[in-house]
Amino acid sequence: MNPKNLIRPQVRKLHAYVPGEQPKVRGLIKLNTNENPYPPSPKVQDELRKAVDGRLRLYPNPAALGLREGLAKLHKCRPENVIIGNGSDELLALATRAFVEPVPVGVDRSSLSGKARSRSTVQYFDPSYSLYPVLSEIHGAVANPVRLDDDFGIPDRAVLRKRGWDFDAALTYVTTPNAPSGRGYASAQLDDLCAWQKRVTILDEAYADFAGENALSLALKHPHVLVSRTFSKAYSLCFQRIGYFVGHRELIAALDRIRDSYNVNGLGQVAAIGTLGSLSYYRKNIRQIIRQRALIARSLSALGFEVLPSETNFLLVRPPAFPACEWQKQLRDEKIIVRWFGGGRISEFLRVTIGTEPEMVAFLAAVRKILA
Amino acid sequence: MNPKNLIRPQVRKLHAYVPGEQPKVRGLIKLNTNENPYPPSPKVQDELRKAVDGRLRLYPNPAALGLREGLAKLHKCRPENVIIGNGSDELLALATRAFVEPVPVGVDRSSLSGKARSRSTVQYFDPSYSLYPVLSEIHGAVANPVRLDDDFGIPDRAVLRKRGWDFDAALTYVTTPNAPSGRGYASAQLDDLCAWQKRVTILDEAYADFAGENALSLALKHPHVLVSRTFSKAYSLCFQRIGYFVGHRELIAALDRIRDSYNVNGLGQVAAIGTLGSLSYYRKNIRQIIRQRALIARSLSALGFEVLPSETNFLLVRPPAFPACEWQKQLRDEKIIVRWFGGGRISEFLRVTIGTEPEMVAFLAAVRKILA
Repeated sequence: MNPKNLIRPQVRKLHAYVPGEQPKVRGLIKLNTNENPYPPSPKVQDELRKAVDGRLRLYPNPAALGLREGLAKLHKCRPENVIIGNGSDELLALATRAFVEPVPVGVDRSSLSGKARSRSTVQYFDPSYSLYPVLSEIHGAVANPVRLDDDFGIPDRAVLRKRGWDFDAALTYVTTPNAPSGRGYASAQLDDLCAWQKRVTILDEAYADFAGENALSLALKHPHVLVSRTFSKAYSLCFQRIGYFVGHRELIAALDRIRDSYNVNGLGQVAAIGTLGSLSYYRKNIRQIIRQRALIARSLSALGFEVLPSETNFLLVRPPAFPACEWQKQLRDEKIIVRWFGGGRISEFLRVTIGTEPEMVAFLAAVRKILA
Repeated sequence: MNPKNLIRPQVRKLHAYVPGEQPKVRGLIKLNTNENPYPPSPKVQDELRKAVDGRLRLYPNPAALGLREGLAKLHKCRPENVIIGNGSDELLALATRAFVEPVPVGVDRSSLSGKARSRSTVQYFDPSYSLYPVLSEIHGAVANPVRLDDDFGIPDRAVLRKRGWDFDAALTYVTTPNAPSGRGYASAQLDDLCAWQKRVTILDEAYADFAGENALSLALKHPHVLVSRTFSKAYSLCFQRIGYFVGHRELIAALDRIRDSYNVNGLGQVAAIGTLGSLSYYRKNIRQIIRQRALIARSLSALGFEVLPSETNFLLVRPPAFPACEWQKQLRDEKIIVRWFGGGRISEFLRVTIGTEPEMVAFLAAVRKILA
């Protein structure tokens, strides 16, 4: 028996999403996966240590109710408008399964058209979060990537249509602010886009805390709009996998029905609830990261880098002198890891996470050394 | 716009899995969800507290490599034979998506036959883990529940066939020892069953540590067999959601391709690795639970209960005098929670988790009080 034959044909041919490197070597400056350079608040750490006791033997709250209540209060909605995921990645994946009809086995995707095609379509901008095409592929959907403008702006309605945008797509992901470019979008523009959309539209706001404005209110205004947030970027909690969606209770309930019943680990719930109780600590760190972002952008520009405007905790930059992949290697030799996305539209760029001030001083010193 | 129309028809009509109650009231004796009554080892708690620091800001190891290496050593296989899940529930769900073709929208399930039906079939025994039909329904598969014998034994090949068992089903779950009956199965019998099976067969060994023997070796013998294990029952770690599968590297790789990239939270990985370093602590607790199980079985029998043989950390018992649901209520009034499964084949039974000695003394006192 060849075990390969036991696997669904569409799963057999999948390529897994490749996450950024999590190095085992110590002493590296890690500017490659947009983690927050600051630890969780002392209060959160303290509450976590106190929670390590006999309760670990018990199942966590299956509905993450305390956390949903806290988030509902923060966002002025009801707990029924909030679902917690094992990271927002889990929720993004659940959305494909709740809202998109997979193309049946044996049916040629390219043969689909009209409504049948739309019902099976996962749509997103190019470039944006590289997980979306992977989720589409895993689910057996039709992926519809549509090119952003040269400056990574969202095109107007007519141009969108010309580029093959499907306003009737079953599921559309919009990374806002955009990753990996860092560009932010005005809520008014997103509101227009949402109004044109006929089906589920997810505003993926992983980086919204670093932006001038956010579009959370659109999730409470439009019944087909969900906003995705995470505790990984602004709230220093990658390790414990907490993300959430806000939106209409019917859409939230659909996701709730297909999630694993204990999908959110207990210490993650404890940490996230604690986070909501020390937001001023995190806001201070966010302001510090935004300040560093401006400083580094100026310094890199002065050194000949093309620096794209950013409303996130990273900068997308086109380095001078030699290719981006070569820069990545040389920075690695200087014990600094940054992200390079080969192959696509941004292969001439590096993505640099904003770290602490000492980390960014070291980064700039390495850049100057490489240039010299 | 009615948001219900944005949801896939099959998801609209789903009923969510109902997990056992996680009461908010303190002071209850919780014998309803088969949690371990003992806390994680002091070593594990200590390591967890020490791990609460700046690392929480970082993504956890995406492949849970340290834990997989530890488990590979324990089970004498390679890390490629092991995948970690956010609880074994996540892996059970991933298996439906990796190995079972969903029935296309608009196709009547009952109209399917032969090979097409088998490719879409999720098969399991009745009764067994009540999550399986939910997973089948979520995925849009054809559920094929097949009756166990009256004593919850697995029927022989001829009887299986007569009861509608499909040896060619895409995915078969076997809870062993069986839940909710508690009955264990000889590995030789499971080996036979696996040999008859033509496609993926999961031996769900959530309770194997409480049994006289386990069938882990079958996952390394048969290329189509996976064994599912969890840290929730024997290893007191429900809160942190750690489960795993062992099996052929091709099947493990298929599951790996469709999981979320950071599916296992960091403190869960720390705790599970620590657990492997203090197995003697857990083995002592397991022996204590097995002793209590024997004592309680004898006491309940003497009080007129029908007590089924158990190789798990719970007992399925048919109470005397009045109906099981009434017993559940009365025990609740005595601050003791047990599980009653209404509606099905075991509605005359209560499932009682084995707690600590003082908890079980209180349980027996409550039973005597209710009987008096």
